[in-house]
Amino acid sequence: MNEILILGAGKSTPVLIHYLAEKVKAEGWNLTVADLELTSAQRWCKDHKHVKAIGLDLGDNEKRRKWIKKANVVVSMLPPSMHGLVSQDCLDLDTHFFSASYTDKSIKEKEDEIQEKGLFFLNECGLDPGLDHMSAMKIIHREQSSGHHISLFKSFCGGLLAPGHRGGNPWNYKFTWNPRNVVLAGRGVSTFIRNGYLKFIPYHMLFKRKESVEFPGLGTYEAYPNRDSLSYRSVYGLDNIPTILRGTLRNRGFCKAWDVLVMLGLTDDSIELDLPKGFSPLMLTNSFLPYDPSRSPQEKIKQLIPDIDEETFAKLDWLGLFKSGKLDKRKGSPAEILLSLLEKKWHMEPEDRDMVLMQHQFIVEQGDKTKKILSDLVVLGDDQIKTAMAKTVGYPLGAAVYLFMKGKFKSRGLLLPTLKEIYQPILMELANYGIEFKEREEPA
Amino acid sequence: MNEILILGAGKSTPVLIHYLAEKVKAEGWNLTVADLELTSAQRWCKDHKHVKAIGLDLGDNEKRRKWIKKANVVVSMLPPSMHGLVSQDCLDLDTHFFSASYTDKSIKEKEDEIQEKGLFFLNECGLDPGLDHMSAMKIIHREQSSGHHISLFKSFCGGLLAPGHRGGNPWNYKFTWNPRNVVLAGRGVSTFIRNGYLKFIPYHMLFKRKESVEFPGLGTYEAYPNRDSLSYRSVYGLDNIPTILRGTLRNRGFCKAWDVLVMLGLTDDSIELDLPKGFSPLMLTNSFLPYDPSRSPQEKIKQLIPDIDEETFAKLDWLGLFKSGKLDKRKGSPAEILLSLLEKKWHMEPEDRDMVLMQHQFIVEQGDKTKKILSDLVVLGDDQIKTAMAKTVGYPLGAAVYLFMKGKFKSRGLLLPTLKEIYQPILMELANYGIEFKEREEPA
Repeated sequence: MNEILILGAGKSTPVLIHYLAEKVKAEGWNLTVADLELTSAQRWCKDHKHVKAIGLDLGDNEKRRKWIKKANVVVSMLPPSMHGLVSQDCLDLDTHFFSASYTDKSIKEKEDEIQEKGLFFLNECGLDPGLDHMSAMKIIHREQSSGHHISLFKSFCGGLLAPGHRGGNPWNYKFTWNPRNVVLAGRGVSTFIRNGYLKFIPYHMLFKRKESVEFPGLGTYEAYPNRDSLSYRSVYGLDNIPTILRGTLRNRGFCKAWDVLVMLGLTDDSIELDLPKGFSPLMLTNSFLPYDPSRSPQEKIKQLIPDIDEETFAKLDWLGLFKSGKLDKRKGSPAEILLSLLEKKWHMEPEDRDMVLMQHQFIVEQGDKTKKILSDLVVLGDDQIKTAMAKTVGYPLGAAVYLFMKGKFKSRGLLLPTLKEIYQPILMELANYGIEFKEREEPA
Repeated sequence: MNEILILGAGKSTPVLIHYLAEKVKAEGWNLTVADLELTSAQRWCKDHKHVKAIGLDLGDNEKRRKWIKKANVVVSMLPPSMHGLVSQDCLDLDTHFFSASYTDKSIKEKEDEIQEKGLFFLNECGLDPGLDHMSAMKIIHREQSSGHHISLFKSFCGGLLAPGHRGGNPWNYKFTWNPRNVVLAGRGVSTFIRNGYLKFIPYHMLFKRKESVEFPGLGTYEAYPNRDSLSYRSVYGLDNIPTILRGTLRNRGFCKAWDVLVMLGLTDDSIELDLPKGFSPLMLTNSFLPYDPSRSPQEKIKQLIPDIDEETFAKLDWLGLFKSGKLDKRKGSPAEILLSLLEKKWHMEPEDRDMVLMQHQFIVEQGDKTKKILSDLVVLGDDQIKTAMAKTVGYPLGAAVYLFMKGKFKSRGLLLPTLKEIYQPILMELANYGIEFKEREEPA
């Protein structure tokens, strides 16, 4: 077992590649990095002469299968839509499979076959999903094995700007991860449970239903509920827990302003607009407001959302929504047109640094005593390449591959890092790279 | 040319069948009515010994094509999803095709072939689409050929309860047409143009953006915008019109109360709920509201929508949304669960009568004079079978078939009843059956 193949060499891979490059050098293994463009594959390999970079078109079945067959372990950093194809190849060709994405549905049906062949397929081993599973399960297993009862579990995660890197941006926000996912986040109905009451929040209400999350030394953030908190009850062995909620962290004031974009309809992705030439951002904003030539779009927004504050207006204004001038993008869904506006304003500058925050909250009952456990992760980006995002995705995935090849995991099959055997050594390894949860207790 | 085949014998067909049964008797033609269930096909044919009723499984290609080949004209009253299949058969087998549905996309691509074969394919020839096209085009063609300029066109249509048939129902509404379509109406983004300003309304804002529509002698109704008004610019030859809007009519107060259901999330159709046993309508309502054990769902709704009035509350209350007891349907989307509640409350009783309303509004410029033209249609249901809906769908479609077989239409190809040659004789024929628009003028 000495051949690792990484598929995909995008922005989130440099930390993974550097980490595994060091490990294979020390262990005498081989690492190949493949991307559609050879130059992309080479980009993160140039400091590692022992790593092979190749150009690989995944549509070329023969070549793809040749490389997957040659490898003992495939690490897929491809878009989730490609994971069905690649994991099927791995199953056919007896290659172990690792990814940071949610388990592909088509491969879920082949769970038994993976187990029978003695293969190790590990998904959801990045940040979220990934680190969230590991750090939560560590506490859940520990408390449950002490006979304690967990009555509340909340978990929050967010990709934000590092403190001190917010200059001149009233949103305190920039795209530190997939911009499209940020713009489309939350559509559908978010589901969770609180004190035994099922709660469903439709998208147009989501950003009004935020809660505060405190990080000692950093301050107060806000979180809106993720789409699906309920399914984590069975994933985490908390089937009858009366309160479970997962949420996304944002800086204070973000949700209130984003809610205006949602209310207007600017985040809709269901209709294809084809706006006339010369259409301006101001005209776009106005097109989502009632007709009233006696009022400005700003006045109409005030009428629509009477409790809107100056801070929120400043955010909308800064995005350019009240500007004349020409829209660059006039064809596409409202969300796509909004995205093109946001990408100009929210792109990371060379001097910007990102930050990943995660917090778990538990209420635990020990006999007649009740305590609150809080577990925080704060990871800062080092530079534009070793971002907090790239670190928190790359190190967990890299550590999983390394520890697997070192023979640390006995389990086989289609797995998640919710197993103690898997998360325990990974969390220990991650501490060497500055990824470490800080736990504290409070009276409940 | 003497063979007519009607496919589908659902609730909307009796008027069509009775109308064509009389015509074929007088003309010495043959009429066959086919339905999956022979008894359904026989249901509306029992008073017409000369009409043949047959059981026909459309999945049986051979039998289906045998009957379509035998006919000169097929009238499809099938669900829209079947029209691709049936119209393709008609094209292959040289049979003319009539429907009250929107033109099927797959057959649109074969427009040239239909024309070349000299076939007559007429879609959108019921109520809406159908009567709306005909009655609007009559005025548009007339005004345009007089050299007048149309600067505004609004068109409203609704299926409602007849006046005097609203007893004990604070919504003044029952399902007089496809209930599922009523519950799902408006999702996406509605588009129209007003005084040259493009307007887009997302679903969660739609029922707040209603306008008043007056029917002389009947009173004031309200209308919310339909999804797509913009495409009617080219369909009606009004390409540069500064104001065009199509809307759906409801009784006053309906939109305000329906908007509460939308705001809560109860009309969502994107998520599959699986509610616990014993879940009540009250618990369902509460699940879409924030957690707050100190407040009732009613109090929470008041907090969410401060300007809600007692009338609106009475509507929600009458629907049973604050009732304990068990939900009959616990699995399905919120919209499907809501639908199961609504169907119990909004089903037509034997003594209920329906009504179809339509109104076109035009502003027309003649030199320096400006006038407003209003054109109203009011059709009342006679009984549970000859409903206003069945009449306003059945007569236009039946009249089109009859007039076509009498050789009144020279055009061939894939057509809409927007052609003068088609709508003029149909509207004249419809007047014999009490379907007649009343036109009036007002100063603009």
